[in-house]
Amino acid sequence: MAGPDIGTVREYISKYSNWRRWGEHDERGTLNHVTSKDITYAASLVKKGRSISMALPFDENGPQQGTYNRFNPIHLMTRDGADVVANTSVRDFYGGVDRYFRGTDDIVILPLQSGTQWDSLAHVVFENKIYNGYDADQVSSKGALRNGVCNAAGGMVGRGVLLDIARSMGVPWLEPGTAIGADDLDRAAGQQGVEIRKGDFVFVRTGAIAQARAAGAWGDYAGGPAPGLGLKSIDWVAGHELAAIATDTWGMEVLPNETADVFQPLHIVFIVHLGLWVGEIWDLEPLATDCAQDGVYDFLFCGPPLPFTYAVGSPVNPMAIK
Amino acid sequence: MAGPDIGTVREYISKYSNWRRWGEHDERGTLNHVTSKDITYAASLVKKGRSISMALPFDENGPQQGTYNRFNPIHLMTRDGADVVANTSVRDFYGGVDRYFRGTDDIVILPLQSGTQWDSLAHVVFENKIYNGYDADQVSSKGALRNGVCNAAGGMVGRGVLLDIARSMGVPWLEPGTAIGADDLDRAAGQQGVEIRKGDFVFVRTGAIAQARAAGAWGDYAGGPAPGLGLKSIDWVAGHELAAIATDTWGMEVLPNETADVFQPLHIVFIVHLGLWVGEIWDLEPLATDCAQDGVYDFLFCGPPLPFTYAVGSPVNPMAIK
Amino acid sequence: MAGPDIGTVREYISKYSNWRRWGEHDERGTLNHVTSKDITYAASLVKKGRSISMALPFDENGPQQGTYNRFNPIHLMTRDGADVVANTSVRDFYGGVDRYFRGTDDIVILPLQSGTQWDSLAHVVFENKIYNGYDADQVSSKGALRNGVCNAAGGMVGRGVLLDIARSMGVPWLEPGTAIGADDLDRAAGQQGVEIRKGDFVFVRTGAIAQARAAGAWGDYAGGPAPGLGLKSIDWVAGHELAAIATDTWGMEVLPNETADVFQPLHIVFIVHLGLWVGEIWDLEPLATDCAQDGVYDFLFCGPPLPFTYAVGSPVNPMAIK
Amino acid sequence: MAGPDIGTVREYISKYSNWRRWGEHDERGTLNHVTSKDITYAASLVKKGRSISMALPFDENGPQQGTYNRFNPIHLMTRDGADVVANTSVRDFYGGVDRYFRGTDDIVILPLQSGTQWDSLAHVVFENKIYNGYDADQVSSKGALRNGVCNAAGGMVGRGVLLDIARSMGVPWLEPGTAIGADDLDRAAGQQGVEIRKGDFVFVRTGAIAQARAAGAWGDYAGGPAPGLGLKSIDWVAGHELAAIATDTWGMEVLPNETADVFQPLHIVFIVHLGLWVGEIWDLEPLATDCAQDGVYDFLFCGPPLPFTYAVGSPVNPMAIK
Repeated sequence: MAGPDIGTVREYISKYSNWRRWGEHDERGTLNHVTSKDITYAASLVKKGRSISMALPFDENGPQQGTYNRFNPIHLMTRDGADVVANTSVRDFYGGVDRYFRGTDDIVILPLQSGTQWDSLAHVVFENKIYNGYDADQVSSKGALRNGVCNAAGGMVGRGVLLDIARSMGVPWLEPGTAIGADDLDRAAGQQGVEIRKGDFVFVRTGAIAQARAAGAWGDYAGGPAPGLGLKSIDWVAGHELAAIATDTWGMEVLPNETADVFQPLHIVFIVHLGLWVGEIWDLEPLATDCAQDGVYDFLFCGPPLPFTYAVGSPVNPMAIK
Repeated sequence: MAGPDIGTVREYISKYSNWRRWGEHDERGTLNHVTSKDITYAASLVKKGRSISMALPFDENGPQQGTYNRFNPIHLMTRDGADVVANTSVRDFYGGVDRYFRGTDDIVILPLQSGTQWDSLAHVVFENKIYNGYDADQVSSKGALRNGVCNAAGGMVGRGVLLDIARSMGVPWLEPGTAIGADDLDRAAGQQGVEIRKGDFVFVRTGAIAQARAAGAWGDYAGGPAPGLGLKSIDWVAGHELAAIATDTWGMEVLPNETADVFQPLHIVFIVHLGLWVGEIWDLEPLATDCAQDGVYDFLFCGPPLPFTYAVGSPVNPMAIK
Repeated sequence: MAGPDIGTVREYISKYSNWRRWGEHDERGTLNHVTSKDITYAASLVKKGRSISMALPFDENGPQQGTYNRFNPIHLMTRDGADVVANTSVRDFYGGVDRYFRGTDDIVILPLQSGTQWDSLAHVVFENKIYNGYDADQVSSKGALRNGVCNAAGGMVGRGVLLDIARSMGVPWLEPGTAIGADDLDRAAGQQGVEIRKGDFVFVRTGAIAQARAAGAWGDYAGGPAPGLGLKSIDWVAGHELAAIATDTWGMEVLPNETADVFQPLHIVFIVHLGLWVGEIWDLEPLATDCAQDGVYDFLFCGPPLPFTYAVGSPVNPMAIK
Repeated sequence: MAGPDIGTVREYISKYSNWRRWGEHDERGTLNHVTSKDITYAASLVKKGRSISMALPFDENGPQQGTYNRFNPIHLMTRDGADVVANTSVRDFYGGVDRYFRGTDDIVILPLQSGTQWDSLAHVVFENKIYNGYDADQVSSKGALRNGVCNAAGGMVGRGVLLDIARSMGVPWLEPGTAIGADDLDRAAGQQGVEIRKGDFVFVRTGAIAQARAAGAWGDYAGGPAPGLGLKSIDWVAGHELAAIATDTWGMEVLPNETADVFQPLHIVFIVHLGLWVGEIWDLEPLATDCAQDGVYDFLFCGPPLPFTYAVGSPVNPMAIK
């Protein structure tokens, strides 16, 4: 019996594609699942008044190793304080009038998907189309005229749920190549005593970042084999009508791919056809520790992208508020 | 009688400096004012389930005009979709195996304070020192070893309050050079029926962005004369023990400066000595419209910086949740 | 009688196109005109032992004003010397072992055609084709697979000739909109006592940079109306079989265009069809002054581009050696 | 007997320092050795009319591996040709008027010393001073106010001499750690039948790039152990009063350092005190092959840096003309 292939992908698409569901001009995809009631309900989950970041530091020690033309952020000072101490007059842009005040300033060169990030709905092309059927040439050298990351700039607020798959399996982390299925997601939810609701932001912990930390090096964390969502999770993800899904891996889904002839089949089904917002390289360790301590796995989530116009991705500092 | 000068600045410093208040190693400044109760209380303000972004788009149409070595973000595609349509094989980094999947990717070159932003506590140097008394050479060409913007990465969540100064004065915007004082802040709060509490995140609307939009051009919005907080607001700001303050102007305080011999005296008092987090270039227009409609001026605020290591500022997409 | 239009352009193309002249795989275009004898002859022109640069400084005071997505170079230090004086230990990448040695380092962000530059033969697309008939999709988001600027990396050496059009007309500079024709080129050559030979590198001085300096501001030098080569120069340029042509303007040819329905018709004829290398924003002032003084207008020229792989242009520091 | 150390370095400095030799405002250093006669003589060496580039391609496959905060050039398209073929209208900055003409454009992000390069005389700091005794704080976050690379923009033309050390020793390359001394330099010159003259530009081939090519990977070429000039070459280099010296290694001198307590002692003696211009990462392979074939090892050299204002280094495409 043949394994999964492009035919499998097409079947999922025919079952779950959301193209035109929210109109022919929609660019928000699954964020349409979130209602104002979801937000007020999410706010009611804030009980102990603690905010927990899910972002990795953005710096030269990030996970990128040059694959896919991505590199770690390059941070550069345009004016620094040592100049002041050294009494160098060059950068005194206040014209020498002021003996007291001096400012410092900096810039960054940042591949938008090099660290903790959101994929936009323009990030993946399948057979010359992006989400909602727009032609792929709408993403030109100018950027994404359609489905840019700005479409999520005012959203990305709602109920967040952590599903700690590694912990529910009693392991520190899933090994690369481990495919997560509906049963794994349900088991974690059950053990945690949390239910999944339409419009939720679900964060799936594989422990991959814990593994990299234990190893003391990123290795091929960014771009290599990884645990992640498998084909057998698609019914679950599509059925729950999530607002977004994020993982602590570089590519959300399991690598190597389960389909021999298609790269990243879940990216195709989720991003191109469900219009699902996907987050990657999220550091779920501090949140997982907190959830394990208080036994509470749902919370208010706030994690909007930066509104870079025409961008196909965005860095984010996602916040869980409990 | 002489006008305000460096002596005035020194008086405010001697009254309000928070150096060592939270220990000799503190780098969080006024974020120390925020308690877990403040966060749960803030969450209780979420009533109608609406999230409102206070960020400007980050793109080449931003407000920067080259002053202070700042420029608008430069966004560049590393792989785009038109290549796919044109059937160019070059960027097929999946090795030609895959006929179906194609990804797009992009990078940005971003002065960290070019758009909607947080100043870190390392952004301003006064007499060779930064906040909490650290030597300014701790901000070297490597970046801010002390007081970097990362210190706020897990915080910036609490009760937000909009003070719509322009509306409370019945004008569409304050003219450049208008200094806002304690009386203006109290009048707005009174009219709006909102009180200020310790640990609040206060957003002061001058209408400067509305003015630029009405003009159809940024002009010298970024770097030129502007309305903003004046010396007579310092007692109010320091006395209320705010977590942070942000404005819809490029530099928070009134320009030209009220002190003839010191540039940006409030930056010195607030950032260097209070350890107050300052936000600038915030687009308060959508929030102001919403608040005017429902009469509610306080809300849950979530606006963490991106944790760029050693950075002296950060872009932010600040979110009001009502 | 109708003015020149796309039909005119097509006529020139049918007369002068060099497609396939040097084989179907050629990417060097008119550099094929240069022989080893031309180089030895050019070296024989070196008489007084003086080298004169034709490059503008590359910095934030360059001519770019943001048109065509070009900006002036952004130069940033990654390690500076003030840190050393301030005794900041951060950037001591030598591990603290060394008390003596310290290095400085820097980077630049550079639009490749923002300053003194060469256009590659991939810079202009006409009806979906680039030089020698390659499809335009050979220039993808990856860069120029064909006709990249690297093709000139080992060449750009030969006999240089300055034609000082402004001086030959007795004016400090030609006004924007002035079209230079064959008669102007011949008059200058005649007055200067210099003949044009096959394989020459010809530099045409309009005085545009002198004009900008006299004005004390670049104004719309880069992107606006300019003097330059006109349609009536095409027979001359094509007939002389030059190796390259360069001017002291941003766009080589006269602006506004003489053709109502085609932008930059000479770029189409020269770059796409002749395969002619075009240099722009060359500072010909020091060379012109020297030539006027010694009456010698030909010299050894050496001005190779930097071999940026897949690039469509390159900065250059072109050198005249007399 | 103790090995060489900081005392050794100080002895060389006391013997050879050129501080103030060309006046207290000099920033050109050893370029002062080049006379107009040297240039005319060099031009007379052009016999066969061939130009040979000594530059590596500048691209993502360059030698940098992230050490010393250097990375390989990042090349990005701002407008490409595939857009044109795909008929995407976004980047038609000509306003849609023109159906025919389309341009492509690109930018590069370039550490100035990441590839074939010149060190400026501001690149190395020794005991808080740079060449000619300027204080190191003249190199601030703004850049090199003194001794910037622009000082060589109009020079770098003269007689070039290749000394092929590897070939003269009968090996394909020198192993890392091999120190080249005066005897090695003289032996190569003798075998090649070439004499060294004051004002020469001398290029020393170790074969390190050939070794990397043979290995099929750069490995730690950029930043690791390398063959190069040793302490016993200093008398030779200083005594010959060279204009500049360049090698096919990342750091010119032998690594590991011969001095236990000082990093790169030759950089200190040469750059800080001789004011000697140093080139690194030069691809001497094609030139070496040519010289071995015709037996001629001297030629006209032209290799000016790009005049980046305030820069401490510059990429270069150095040209040998024979």
